[in-house]
Amino acid sequence: MTDTTRVTLAEIAAEAGVSLATMSKVLNGRTDVSASTRARLEEHLSRHGYTRRNASQRTEFVELVFHELEASWSMEVVGGVEEVAHAAGLSVVLTVSGDRHSPSPDWIDGVLRRRPVGVILVFSDIAAPFREKLRSRGIPFVIVDPAGDPSPDVPSVGSANWSGGLAATRHLIELGHRRIAAISGPEDMMCSLARVDGYRSAMNAAGLPIDPAWIRFGDFHPDGGQAHGRELLALPDRPTAIFAGSDLQALGVIAAGSAAGLRVPDDLSVVGYDDIALSRWMSPQLTTVHQPLRRMGEEATRLALRLADGASVETLRMDLATHLVVRGSTARYTG
Amino acid sequence: MTDTTRVTLAEIAAEAGVSLATMSKVLNGRTDVSASTRARLEEHLSRHGYTRRNASQRTEFVELVFHELEASWSMEVVGGVEEVAHAAGLSVVLTVSGDRHSPSPDWIDGVLRRRPVGVILVFSDIAAPFREKLRSRGIPFVIVDPAGDPSPDVPSVGSANWSGGLAATRHLIELGHRRIAAISGPEDMMCSLARVDGYRSAMNAAGLPIDPAWIRFGDFHPDGGQAHGRELLALPDRPTAIFAGSDLQALGVIAAGSAAGLRVPDDLSVVGYDDIALSRWMSPQLTTVHQPLRRMGEEATRLALRLADGASVETLRMDLATHLVVRGSTARYTG
Repeated sequence: MTDTTRVTLAEIAAEAGVSLATMSKVLNGRTDVSASTRARLEEHLSRHGYTRRNASQRTEFVELVFHELEASWSMEVVGGVEEVAHAAGLSVVLTVSGDRHSPSPDWIDGVLRRRPVGVILVFSDIAAPFREKLRSRGIPFVIVDPAGDPSPDVPSVGSANWSGGLAATRHLIELGHRRIAAISGPEDMMCSLARVDGYRSAMNAAGLPIDPAWIRFGDFHPDGGQAHGRELLALPDRPTAIFAGSDLQALGVIAAGSAAGLRVPDDLSVVGYDDIALSRWMSPQLTTVHQPLRRMGEEATRLALRLADGASVETLRMDLATHLVVRGSTARYTG
Repeated sequence: MTDTTRVTLAEIAAEAGVSLATMSKVLNGRTDVSASTRARLEEHLSRHGYTRRNASQRTEFVELVFHELEASWSMEVVGGVEEVAHAAGLSVVLTVSGDRHSPSPDWIDGVLRRRPVGVILVFSDIAAPFREKLRSRGIPFVIVDPAGDPSPDVPSVGSANWSGGLAATRHLIELGHRRIAAISGPEDMMCSLARVDGYRSAMNAAGLPIDPAWIRFGDFHPDGGQAHGRELLALPDRPTAIFAGSDLQALGVIAAGSAAGLRVPDDLSVVGYDDIALSRWMSPQLTTVHQPLRRMGEEATRLALRLADGASVETLRMDLATHLVVRGSTARYTG
């Protein structure tokens, strides 16, 4: 959004051989202009460093939307968004709305009134009519950690869930565990399925059988981890290791173990997922899969700002790498 | 901000026997009107349900300002602010600025441009020139958990820090501990001093001596708890119980104990402060002083919105109660 040249919009339209009305449509993000025309005209605008008139009228913030504020997890994303926004001289509006799939209908009216520079959505997807409304107002949006299956034309930043599930399970197999269970998140979230599939592939590759009772879908909260942990540890031939799917669920599993008289890692190995800030301060320190939540927030915001600037973006989908962090909640199987 | 009557400002000014100019000054929060005149005119305005003209021009949000986003602690406050703002149809702008004493100078320019309905500051105080600027623009502000010593005319919501320190220490004394140490937060924060004074009073009331080496000032983070815990546990006649001043510092103390081969609570009792969401999921579950962070965020936002509506507020300072939550990190002294 540089503002150095003083060429008028009419002059640029004339140069491009289109009417001022068509040029305005492009500027205002209207959908009744073909993609190729839009691209060509955007190119003219950007060559002249033309500042969208409404850019300066917009309030100076990006909007970050969650369906719930969960302290450990959400704040990492908030921190990344805030840092990039702040560096760009923008504030962050934080909104809580809807369920984990999509923001609620009243949100869309609010955001169109607020007119943020861009929107970061921590949701699986955003309903097509919402998308169109945002697009027609020229408000770019980016989805963080799509737990669902966002359309390919929706800009999104995720992380390598399948690889994370694979790495967590391989680590347990390398420690000599054979009876390994997996608790993932809600079954209707793609990230849950991807982590479980990574677990399955690691088990299959090692030739280890999977008891169907070992695969669970929780809620990503400590309570879910505790409930499933309790049931898993009550099985006749109980698992000796549990991939808990999230750090919060790992806390629940450790509590369930403790209630059953099992010490972690001596009697039970537990791997978390996320690597929240407190995971290295737990007792024992949590072995976990690092998900770069902060960086996902940063990248999503950078992408939204680039889109707001009308920059051409080569790829709309970005998956950041995950990696295993080995700490104290896993140990060699000695049974 | 009701908008039911259609009496003009000139009519209200005439009724109150002042000029329209004076009435405008009151409406715009100018400081060159005496407090008594302002109060009298505000009363006239509110009787007629007069809507401040600029209220409808304002963007529809409250601004929440932190000096740092610490996941567990900050998110509780954010949740409370968000809930009350949302119920009032407002968004929340989240800003990170300055150090723990005051927001930075560039923040004030930004907030005057953004014109929020109200500002919630999680700081010790706000510099007098900033206060005047906000007041002159009619932007009410409320300080949450003033760690410093806010002027009596600054609206603020805190909690009973002294009582919290007293309750934590009494609990340890009742369990039979005599060598009890206290790690508080930074020494230049009033809340740190209040908690330590509560500790001192409990020790004095029980006739227990205090070794000066037992009183420490940390940083409210796990690292500070760990560093001071390490030193305390290395003392010749080490304390058998530690009031850790915050839940995060308690985690650091437990880690220091673990490194020294001490189990909590068998060999060492630890009391936290705050009662963050994860404290009941730690191993052992944390005995802690519940600080109603979420409710503090709610009350501060309600107060800011009442001030924004021009309502008369009886008391500008509110301290919410704290209470001890006994869980698994404290045990009877058996030494």
